[in-house]
Amino acid sequence: MIIGKVVNRVVATRKYDEIQGYKLLIIEPYYEEDKKFFVAADTIGAGVGELVLVSFGSSVQTALTRKAPIDALVVGIVDQEPI
Amino acid sequence: MIIGKVVNRVVATRKYDEIQGYKLLIIEPYYEEDKKFFVAADTIGAGVGELVLVSFGSSVQTALTRKAPIDALVVGIVDQEPI
Amino acid sequence: MIIGKVVNRVVATRKYDEIQGYKLLIIEPYYEEDKKFFVAADTIGAGVGELVLVSFGSSVQTALTRKAPIDALVVGIVDQEPI
Amino acid sequence: MIIGKVVNRVVATRKYDEIQGYKLLIIEPYYEEDKKFFVAADTIGAGVGELVLVSFGSSVQTALTRKAPIDALVVGIVDQEPI
Amino acid sequence: MIIGKVVNRVVATRKYDEIQGYKLLIIEPYYEEDKKFFVAADTIGAGVGELVLVSFGSSVQTALTRKAPIDALVVGIVDQEPI
Repeated sequence: MIIGKVVNRVVATRKYDEIQGYKLLIIEPYYEEDKKFFVAADTIGAGVGELVLVSFGSSVQTALTRKAPIDALVVGIVDQEPI
Repeated sequence: MIIGKVVNRVVATRKYDEIQGYKLLIIEPYYEEDKKFFVAADTIGAGVGELVLVSFGSSVQTALTRKAPIDALVVGIVDQEPI
Repeated sequence: MIIGKVVNRVVATRKYDEIQGYKLLIIEPYYEEDKKFFVAADTIGAGVGELVLVSFGSSVQTALTRKAPIDALVVGIVDQEPI
Repeated sequence: MIIGKVVNRVVATRKYDEIQGYKLLIIEPYYEEDKKFFVAADTIGAGVGELVLVSFGSSVQTALTRKAPIDALVVGIVDQEPI
Repeated sequence: MIIGKVVNRVVATRKYDEIQGYKLLIIEPYYEEDKKFFVAADTIGAGVGELVLVSFGSSVQTALTRKAPIDALVVGIVDQEPI
């Protein structure tokens, strides 16, 4: 997993049905200098500016209610900024 | 997932049967400085210049009509350029 | 797998149920200059400052008692710092 | 997937049985400056100097006749160099 | 897959049972300048200084006698240094 900051939402009206209903958040990796922003699906309700815990890859499927082409998922909201 | 821009199509006449029928698009990662272009399969109909949402890895198999050696798939077209 | 040093714990009260009960450790990769810290789940009991062995991806599911959206797991504590 | 150039073959007489019978090609990523060469299995018959399309990860297993510890596979030969 | 050089062994007495019995080798990637050493399990018997072929991810499980949280495996010993 990695820690990241929610910086924005992304909207894609034309998309696979299986992705309908998920909020899609643009995440800035917290610990990486080269700032490779990525997109994670969210069902927990993380807001812009919040620090989140993101899981990647096949493990994500274990937390989805149905199979979907989602490879990154917000799995927690970090209580406080790590010192 | 990541956001990327469709920059070109790639044609490979000699390829695995399971990949037949998919458009293969060359994608430029939107947020990465080192521009590691990659190839994603597309069934949504994204055009050159459009911003797309791409998923990677095993999750891709959940959106294919049959199993195929495809590890990156266009899963949405981004409505507008993220600010 | 990689070798990493445990640098901190991260607490996320709001998280997926499947992740409840796992300690979440912030790990500094031992051999990487660009210090991309990441988070791994731990059930072995690694402490801050210890060198650990971390596995990633789908293989992690083979060591969990139940399926969970965890993509990095401490799978061993390194006896001594590699020369 | 990525586009790469076949630069060499690699021979490993002592290897897992499941990998017997596959040509192992050293591939230079076409779009990456830091030239992280890697090895892909090939059954299509790509030659040195040719541009190929390579898939990675679990999707590779869908194109193998039997399960094997292969994580990169040549899945197509690119018709012409992308402009 | 990648080619790497075996540079050391790592010993982790406290580890998951499923990893017991595997030699754990520290591998230096052959083609990468930023030298991100990693750890691979080995059953072929590669020695320090030898060039090996390493597979990653879920494909590794196809070569293990039982499921284990191992994400990198030595799958061959390279006959001679690629020119």
